Order: sequence, then C-alpha cells, then structure tokens
Amino acid sequence: MKTNFIHDNFLLENKYAEELYHNFSKNQPIIDYHNHLSPALIADNHVFGNITEAWINGDHYKWRAMRTLGVNENFITGDAAAKDKFLQWGKTVPYTLRNPLFHWTHLELARYFDIYDLLNENTAEKIYAEASEKISSPEYSTQNLLRKMNAELVCTTEDPVDSLEHHKKIAASDFNIKVSTAFRPDKAILIENEGYNEYVNTLAEAAGIEINTYADLCEALTKRISYFNDNGCRLSDHGLDQIFSAEFTENEISAIFRKRRDGDQISGEEALKFQSAILIFLAESYHSFDWVQQFHLGALRNNNARMHRILGPDTGWDSIGDLSQARQLSAFLNRLDSNDKLTKTIIYNLNPADNEVFATMIGNFNDGSVKGKVQFGSGWWFLDQKDGMTKQMNALSNMGLLSCFIGMLTDSRSFLSFPRHEYFRRVLCNLLGDEIQRGELPNDMEWIGKIVSDISYHNAKEYFNF
Amino acid sequence: MKTNFIHDNFLLENKYAEELYHNFSKNQPIIDYHNHLSPALIADNHVFGNITEAWINGDHYKWRAMRTLGVNENFITGDAAAKDKFLQWGKTVPYTLRNPLFHWTHLELARYFDIYDLLNENTAEKIYAEASEKISSPEYSTQNLLRKMNAELVCTTEDPVDSLEHHKKIAASDFNIKVSTAFRPDKAILIENEGYNEYVNTLAEAAGIEINTYADLCEALTKRISYFNDNGCRLSDHGLDQIFSAEFTENEISAIFRKRRDGDQISGEEALKFQSAILIFLAESYHSFDWVQQFHLGALRNNNARMHRILGPDTGWDSIGDLSQARQLSAFLNRLDSNDKLTKTIIYNLNPADNEVFATMIGNFNDGSVKGKVQFGSGWWFLDQKDGMTKQMNALSNMGLLSCFIGMLTDSRSFLSFPRHEYFRRVLCNLLGDEIQRGELPNDMEWIGKIVSDISYHNAKEYFNF
Amino acid sequence: MKTNFIHDNFLLENKYAEELYHNFSKNQPIIDYHNHLSPALIADNHVFGNITEAWINGDHYKWRAMRTLGVNENFITGDAAAKDKFLQWGKTVPYTLRNPLFHWTHLELARYFDIYDLLNENTAEKIYAEASEKISSPEYSTQNLLRKMNAELVCTTEDPVDSLEHHKKIAASDFNIKVSTAFRPDKAILIENEGYNEYVNTLAEAAGIEINTYADLCEALTKRISYFNDNGCRLSDHGLDQIFSAEFTENEISAIFRKRRDGDQISGEEALKFQSAILIFLAESYHSFDWVQQFHLGALRNNNARMHRILGPDTGWDSIGDLSQARQLSAFLNRLDSNDKLTKTIIYNLNPADNEVFATMIGNFNDGSVKGKVQFGSGWWFLDQKDGMTKQMNALSNMGLLSCFIGMLTDSRSFLSFPRHEYFRRVLCNLLGDEIQRGELPNDMEWIGKIVSDISYHNAKEYFNF
Repeated sequence: MKTNFIHDNFLLENKYAEELYHNFSKNQPIIDYHNHLSPALIADNHVFGNITEAWINGDHYKWRAMRTLGVNENFITGDAAAKDKFLQWGKTVPYTLRNPLFHWTHLELARYFDIYDLLNENTAEKIYAEASEKISSPEYSTQNLLRKMNAELVCTTEDPVDSLEHHKKIAASDFNIKVSTAFRPDKAILIENEGYNEYVNTLAEAAGIEINTYADLCEALTKRISYFNDNGCRLSDHGLDQIFSAEFTENEISAIFRKRRDGDQISGEEALKFQSAILIFLAESYHSFDWVQQFHLGALRNNNARMHRILGPDTGWDSIGDLSQARQLSAFLNRLDSNDKLTKTIIYNLNPADNEVFATMIGNFNDGSVKGKVQFGSGWWFLDQKDGMTKQMNALSNMGLLSCFIGMLTDSRSFLSFPRHEYFRRVLCNLLGDEIQRGELPNDMEWIGKIVSDISYHNAKEYFNF
Repeated sequence: MKTNFIHDNFLLENKYAEELYHNFSKNQPIIDYHNHLSPALIADNHVFGNITEAWINGDHYKWRAMRTLGVNENFITGDAAAKDKFLQWGKTVPYTLRNPLFHWTHLELARYFDIYDLLNENTAEKIYAEASEKISSPEYSTQNLLRKMNAELVCTTEDPVDSLEHHKKIAASDFNIKVSTAFRPDKAILIENEGYNEYVNTLAEAAGIEINTYADLCEALTKRISYFNDNGCRLSDHGLDQIFSAEFTENEISAIFRKRRDGDQISGEEALKFQSAILIFLAESYHSFDWVQQFHLGALRNNNARMHRILGPDTGWDSIGDLSQARQLSAFLNRLDSNDKLTKTIIYNLNPADNEVFATMIGNFNDGSVKGKVQFGSGWWFLDQKDGMTKQMNALSNMGLLSCFIGMLTDSRSFLSFPRHEYFRRVLCNLLGDEIQRGELPNDMEWIGKIVSDISYHNAKEYFNF
Repeated sequence: MKTNFIHDNFLLENKYAEELYHNFSKNQPIIDYHNHLSPALIADNHVFGNITEAWINGDHYKWRAMRTLGVNENFITGDAAAKDKFLQWGKTVPYTLRNPLFHWTHLELARYFDIYDLLNENTAEKIYAEASEKISSPEYSTQNLLRKMNAELVCTTEDPVDSLEHHKKIAASDFNIKVSTAFRPDKAILIENEGYNEYVNTLAEAAGIEINTYADLCEALTKRISYFNDNGCRLSDHGLDQIFSAEFTENEISAIFRKRRDGDQISGEEALKFQSAILIFLAESYHSFDWVQQFHLGALRNNNARMHRILGPDTGWDSIGDLSQARQLSAFLNRLDSNDKLTKTIIYNLNPADNEVFATMIGNFNDGSVKGKVQFGSGWWFLDQKDGMTKQMNALSNMGLLSCFIGMLTDSRSFLSFPRHEYFRRVLCNLLGDEIQRGELPNDMEWIGKIVSDISYHNAKEYFNF
C-alpha cells in the first residue's frame, strides 16, 4: 500500500508532535490577521473559471521558479492559454523540490481538491481538468474556500483612499467569516515616488478636504484612519526597506511638503526627514485609535528595471536587502514609548541574519503593560517556509517568549494559501515534540498543548481588537 | 517511575556524549574567568535572606520574561514582597519554555537546592519556602555556594577607580578559591558620556595625581593598571558597541581631551578619535603587563529611555546591534600587532550573524607565537544558550580550532549561575558525541575526551596568568 | 573488525542517501570549473618530490591551523626540512577535529594514497614515507592525479597578461582532460593599488599597443579577452570585497585614468567611479563573447600587515568581511540587464549571513531566457565545508531552485583537493536522503537521482560553453 506524500502526520516526526498537532492545533479556527486577498472577490463570492486563474495568475512565487527553470514569459504573465500555463507549471513542480512551493503545491491540492497525486509533467493534464472542474463550481466560491479552511477572520490590506465598499458589502451580508482591513499608507509616506502629488490629490478627494500643507495632509490621513476605524479596521501596515528615524522639526516638514507640492526637487535628506515625521504622526494616530501597527522590513524591491517597466511591481523581481535595522527601529519605538504613544506593534523581518536583532528589540519595549505588546512577526515572504519559520521561532524562543507569540498569517494574494496555517502549525508542533522526545522539554502534554493552542489561535484572538 | 526533568544525562543524547561528559568533563574544576559577582558579598561571606534576594533581584533576564508576559513592574523591580515576587516568577517559568531561563531555572534548583520539581504556579509556594530556608542558612553563604560548584577561580570586573579592598580582604582570608578581578575602564574611554569629567576627577583621586592633560589621564590609568596588577589582576575587559579605530595624532587627542575638560562640546568625530587613541593606549599597556584583554562587542544598550530614567542601566532594556565589526576590529588588532604590542585577546560577539566574521578574524593574528593567542569568546548574554553556544562552536570549529578554545564563563551577576558551566559542558559533549555516532569523528574516546577536558578546564588554566 | 574512518558510506546517514550517492553521483565525471592549479605543472606533467611539496607548501588552510596551535613559522613557510614540516602537520591534524581539514586530510590520504590510518603524531613518520614514495613516482604525476579523479575538465585562473603558453602546450598534447582558463583582471581594475601603472605597462606589452588613455586600456583588455577566447577561455573571474556600482561619466573615467597614469593621487571616490566603470565595460565584453562571469565577494584580505610584508598575499591572513552587498550587486546586474548585456553570471558569497541576500538576488535576473542563468555559487573558501555547503544549499533551495544548481568546484591551488567534489556530493545526497526518510521529499529515487546527477555533473556541463 502506497502512502500519500501528504498524509496525516506530514512533518510530524514523533508521537508527541502528532499528539500536539492533532489534539491541540488542527481544529483551531484560523485568524488570518494579514493578507492581500481581494475584498471584491469575497464580496462578489467570486467563482474562478479554472485552476490557473485561481492558482498561477498573480502568484509571483511560482513565476520566479518557472523563470529560473527557463520557462518563457509567455506561459507566465503572457498570453498563453490557461491550460498551457498550467502544464508549464506542472512541468516545473518537480524541479521545486526543497522549495516551499513543492510542499505548498501538494498541500493545497490535497486540502482544497482532494488530489493526492504529485503534480508533474505526467499528471498535469489530469490535475488541470479535475481541479478546474472543482474550482469553477459554486462549492469553490471565494467564500466557500474560506469556510472550507475554518477561517474565523481574514484581514485584507487597503490604501487610505480605498472606499471600503467591498468590506461594507461583506459586513452587510450574511457571510459568517469576519473580513477586516488594514490601513496601508505607504503611498502617502514615500514622498520621492513619481506620482506622489497625484496620489495626494486622490487622498484629498477621499478625505473631502484640500491638501495644501503638511497639516492638511495629516488631517486627511486622520480622517481616513477614522473612516477605516468606523468600518472595523483595527490594524495598520507598512512595507519599508528600513524604519525612518531622522531628527526633524515641524517647520522643516511643512517646508519640504510645500516644496514637493510645488513640483520642486527635494533632496534625499529632506525625504528622509519627511518620512520620519509622517511615520511618527501615523504611529501616534494608531495609538490614539488603539490599533495594532505592523512593519514589514528588509525587502529590496524592483531590482529588475526592465521587467518592472513591462510588468509593474510585485511580479517577482524583489529580493532580500541588507540595510542595518537596529538603531532606527530602536529610535523610532523609543520616541513613541517616551511619549506614551507606542501602540501594540508587530515587526516582521525579511533577512534571517537580522532575526536576533528583531527578537531582542521587542524586549526593549515589552514593559509589562500588555502580554506580548511588541511582537516579532512570523517569517514572511521568502522566509515563509519551514526553515524560515524555524529560525524565527528559535530566535524568538531563545531571546524572548515563544509562548506569547501571535503566530501565523498568510500575507498572501491567493485564496488557496490557507493551508500555510496548517504548515506552520505542523512545524510548530514538530519543534516542540522533538524537544519533548529529546528531554529538552518536560513531557507535559497538557501544558505544552495549551501553548500550542495559544500560538495557533488564542494569542492572536486576545491580541487584536477585531 | 517518573524520571526527573534534570537527570544525569540531561542534554546528552547518546552513549558517546554521556561518556565524554561523565568521564572527562563533569569533574573538572571551574575557572570562571569573567563574571560580575560582587566581591563585597564574597569577602563578607554573605548569607542571603531569601531566594528572591539571591535569584530574582538583579536578574534582568528574568525581568524581561516577566514583563513580556505582562507582569507588573511592582513585582519585578518594585516594592512587592519577596515572596510575591517569587510567586510571579514561578507563574512565569512555564511560559519560558524553549528559553534558556527554563533550563537554567531547573538546573539551578537541582544543583544548589536539590529541588527537582518543575517551578510553576502550583509549586512556587513550596519551592519558595524550601529554597529560602536553605539559602538563608550559613551552608549557602556566598563562599559555600562557590565551593559547592567546585570553582577553582572566579574573576570579577571592576572599574579603575575601585580600591579592590574586597579582593584584598579575600586574598588575606583563608578562602581557598582564588578571586581575581578584571580592569574595565569603559568610563575613562566614553568621553561623550554625561559625567565624564566627574569620573576623571574620581580617577585622579584614585591615582593620586591631578589630571589636566591627556598625558595625565594616561599616567593615571597606568597607575591603576599597575595597582590592579599588584593585586593579582591579569585581565581587562571592554564593553563596546563596536571597536573604535579612527586615525589620530597625539596632538589632536590632547586638544580634544583639553576641550572636554574645559567643558566645551566635542564633535562625534572628535569623540571617535579620542576613543580610538585611548583604546590603543590601554591595549598597549595590557601588553606590557602581559595581561589578557577582552572585548565584548555588538550590544545596543539602553533602548528604552523612559525605563532607563527610572531604573538606570543593566535593567533589561538592551538588545543586539547590527553595526559592522570586521574592518575596525581588523585595523585595531593589526595596529597593535604591527608594533608587536598585541597581547592575548578574547573577542566576544553578540550578533550571531557575525559569528563567522569573528571566527575568521582571530586567525589573522594567530601567528604561532602562543597557542590560541586570539580567542573567539563563548556565546555571551543573549547567546548564552544551547543554540548560541552551538553556533559559536560550529563557527569556531569550521573556521578555526575548537581544540584550542578556552571555553565557558558565566559573565553573570548571580551566585546561582555556575551551573551554566555544566550546561555548556553538556552541550559541548553532546556536539562531539553526536558526530562520533554519525561517523564524522573517529570513535577515539581517549583523544576526544582529552579535547573535552582541555576545553572544560586545561585550556583556560594554561591561557591565563592567574 | 575495525571500520575505517573513511568508508563507503562516510557522511551518508541512511539508505536513501547511500543509494543516491552510489547510483547517481559517485561515477559522474568532474567538471572543476574554477580552481587555481598551476597550468605549468600540468603542462610539464610534474612529479612532486615528496608529500610536503604537494600537500603542505602553498596550503594556507593548513598553515592557519598550525599557527593557531602554536607551531613555529619555520615549520610552515620557513626553512625546516620537508619531513619536519610534515611531522608538525601530522601533530596538528588531531587538533583540527570538526574543521574541514580533518575530513579533507583523511579523504585525500584515502583516495590518492590508499592510506586509511588517521594522521597524528604517531603515524606521521610512516605516512610521510609511504605518501612521499607514491607521490614521487610517475604514477602520481599531475596529469595522473587528475585522471585518478575522473576529471573531465579543469579550469584554472589567469591574469590578462598571461601568455597561456602552458594551456597551449596542454591543448597541443594528447592529455585527454580538457584544461581551460578563466580571465581574472583584478589588477587592471584596482587602480589604487601600488604598482598599478607598472601593471598597465605590462598589459600594454601583452596586448601589443600603447596604453595612454582609458580607451586604450579598454582596447588592450578587449584584445586580451579575444586572445583568451581564441585559446578556449569561456569564463572570467573577479575577486572583490564588494561590487562597485557608482554612477560615472566616460569623461570622468578618462580623466581619472589620465591622472593615475600621470602619477597623481586619485581620491577614494574617483577610484570607486573608475572601478565601477571598468567593471561594467568588462561585464559587457564578457556578454559579447558569451562567456560566463564569476564574482567572488565578501573577503577581507591582508589583515595582518606585518605578515603580509614578510610572506605576501594568500598566505593565511584573510578573513570574512561584513560590508553590505545587496544594493551594489542589484544596481550592477540591473545596469547590465537593462542594456541586454547581462551574460550568465555566478555570484559567490563568503559571509554566510548574506546567503539569503545572494539566494534571492539571483531570482531578480533569472528571466526565463536560460535555465539557471544567474547562479548562487557553492560555498567557497571558509565556507567550503559541510556546514557552509549545507547553508548555501538550504538558502538556495528555500529561495530558488536547487535543481538548477551547477554545483561544486574546488577553487584550490592543490592537485590533491579533488576529493572535495566527493565530499560535496556526499553532503548533497545526505541532505536529500534525510528529507526522503523524514517524508519531506517523496520516495522517488529515479527523480531525485536525476536531480543529483544534474547537480553533480549535467547542469555544469550544460551551463558552460567549454
């Protein structure tokens, strides 16, 4: 009898790990507190036309793998037929061995489609047919995909100018999974970006005020934060290479903003001052609304200018940066803490060499006021795999308290990524089970099971104000 | 029959590891060549009033864990009763699973107090009573605590202005464990610190000369080094974010010092030059006295200004920095080596991402003159745990000679930290035992046992001039 | 019966690993696509006089170990007799446990000399006699040493001024192993080096033109690239601390070169501009010749000025640097890619903290045009050991496609280093075998065996134009 590759005890290497996963983790609901799902597709209870649309289109992880293997862009972001794109992906999968794509692929086929065959050149045609038939049925609508995964809450990410119309529509519907949003004002911050002034105009319109001065900009942002808050938002998010923490005066910032609005060139130093100022302003605002703030740090984006021109951002041309993080992060958090304006904060790190910097940084601002107030977020993007999760949890364990960790989130654009929670939970249970077996943890399944259920669900439930 | 969590073969995962530990390491005396014990408490053969006084007060590792869990500062550094503080700590311990605190806690309870129960909310009251009764008896005086651990030598750390009166008193007593000191002149170096001039005045008084010029400062430091040397000191220590290695002239340094003494502002660049100069001066002095010099690099201290104002330094608000280390360290060591003034040197690294930089740096100055002349020190502070020790030993092994390593030190303020030597030795023996079992090392227990005993004791014995 | 330390299944920890190695890897030919062998010694089919000449002289890995143990330089680079040097090395070997030298030593003794005794103080005399007798016989000539290892191709490294006379002689002979070369123009780039002008004069002579202007320099380099290409070269190599990627204009570069040729001082900024310019020029030239370009990044060289004066470069005084790599590397590759001038490229990283930066950087420029176009090279120098290889392959696997990896190279100056290919292959097979056993990879030996044979041989065969 042949055992499936994905089986009940996948990644669970001893009986303790199995017991922890099956008794304490598996059945916990999912709080996916940060992702990039399309609220429109949820609101419309969209049904995908085929598996390529749901699974390959938009997935730059798969794209990078295909390109590395030498697959032509036509089968990736080009005009090739959905089925042909899938066949190319199927051909690629065996070459992804040891990459998280290999595990994700088969976990997703198993959990959503009950398909246990390994995807490869030989099986691709059959799997395309079977998965496409299923995904194009109402049983596999976006809302049903979320229900299938036992999601309790999902939190998408929107720009301050977003009308939140889809979130309103969902809230008004009888969909029983809560769909929240996170406020992500990167475009209001990055003053050097081409198109900054146009963005500010759009923001002005969304806020219903004119934006001439920096004070206006702050007022507009406050209005949008308030609007997001009224619509259930309890969370913000920032994607930055590095925290900005230059010294500045309000007068300087007003002048810099004025200059930019007038179409004049601003210097790199001025941009840094401005970005430092507005980041503090926003963080203080989040504190006043009792939101949680998130910072995704350490990416080096848009490295390939040629492909960026053709395909735009978030199409697979980003990598891990190596800017220093510690001093700026410390100065920023300290400034907020000193004014008693530091709200609950999650810092996510993309360069594993910095894990210990992040794992120890949070302890500087965990002052006993709130359990796990400042969190070292789960391994994201390139680190969202067994090795990355393990390193993040090891650093957090050795230098902080794993027991207070709010655990996993998908950060994904795909409706088929939720088995990553299962993946994370299996990795977590296996880490702990391994240490029980080796005698590094006591054989107290009740206690360690409680910690597992906390990290799988209860800590996040308690931490957020959703 | 229930096995205790801490048992004979704790952390030893096969028979080779067991044999190495029990036959070659366990019974070696302890040379704790760097710690922060209070010489006054040793000289007075102090008896603690209760377990909280000996074990929780002053221990910022425990404090950070309690704060992260949301314990109020009143039970940490505040006015709460000793027993209530202990109960809070007891409640916290189970939440420290996977943190070194969990292992340290139970190892210390076992080794000092013969207590094998796991500390938690349910056992805290009983353990408080039992441990407090023991620790408050003369059998648990500071000197007896050191005897219990088979210490042969302990080396504390003092400022140049210290009178060493307690060390003298100990030396004159019949206490049979040698108590030495390390010279730590950070306050004489960090010219930008508030209170620098007051410190220089105190130093002048200790040295019995006036300090008006940089030459005076050097003379005063030389006098104190000589005084320390006369009182058995053979070791210095420096705690720096990063080595200073700017270019300078003696005239510049004299002018900068003069400026500071006159109460004028000095620039960051001037401070760097001054610090570079005095560091070289000190290092050359250590060489002339044939001392060992230590550099603890890579911390980012006092991140939380609010809590620093309330509690002062070393109270749990420090973390790991990410400044670059390689070039400055190379330039500094090279400058000394070029003048034949490089004394035996230990460099300690706090950011594990830099382990390989440190492990290879030492090879640049190991010139065959002294076995293991420049040492990559054991994992310290946040890295003083199984994972940190393992990474340090792996880097050292792969890029240098583990066999020449001088091994473990506690670096601790607590009289109850000495089982960390046992912990280190178990980790070391398990690393080697594992490789014997996997066939990566030959099954030559006599040879590998010799290396284990060298790293546990003989290498340090031979390296230092105590 | 005693099992040898080096046995058939050394480093192979389960049956899957064994099967992968013995059935799919062991018998693959070796393509050693980058090393520092002496082409003269190959052309002359040199026979070494004794084992010290072949194995210790020139091997700065062994030298560093001996120095760390306290061996006098006389037995390392000094005048001591060959046999006495060997005895000192023999005494040192047991102290290298856990260092790659320990494994390399015994693998090389076994594979070349059929010696299975462990080298130590007791066996050194006997092993010296046996190995010296063998190595001094024609059966152990340089060409026979390469044949013994089943080498198909070896690629040495030469300066642009090299006449390639030895390569020509080898090509004209009936030696059946292909010997190619890599073009390494570091001396033409590093304009601040003492002796730069003399080097340019030598280059002028080699190219048969006068070099007065930057345009002349470029022309001379082009002539030499063309000459190397005519003699079978298909590969370049650069050893740089960090990629240069400053902005510049052609006018600036011409002026800077002029200044240097006139014997005037140039600034650090000017040097950086010049080096950035010439690097782009060279990279574009490689593209036009369809060569592969290699960049060895991250070393911190010549740290010990005193020993550098005595022994010169590459004598064991180098270490790992911690300069940032990501931005410059990205800018450089992007500039080439934007002009469609990016040729196949291998980037090698010396600081393991940067592995993930490198592993993700390559994905930014793998655009589907060529399978594995931009490669993250195998762990080199200090990272050329089990731990370093494993970390490199883990980073590559998690963030890219291990399946497209072109695998191992020795980068060695020694004719006795080729078992490092075996070492690498065993590590690779054990990594994969371990994951099969743990169920993280499917038990599909045919497929995973194919990937193993690709990484051992076929990927490099396909990648290079040798």
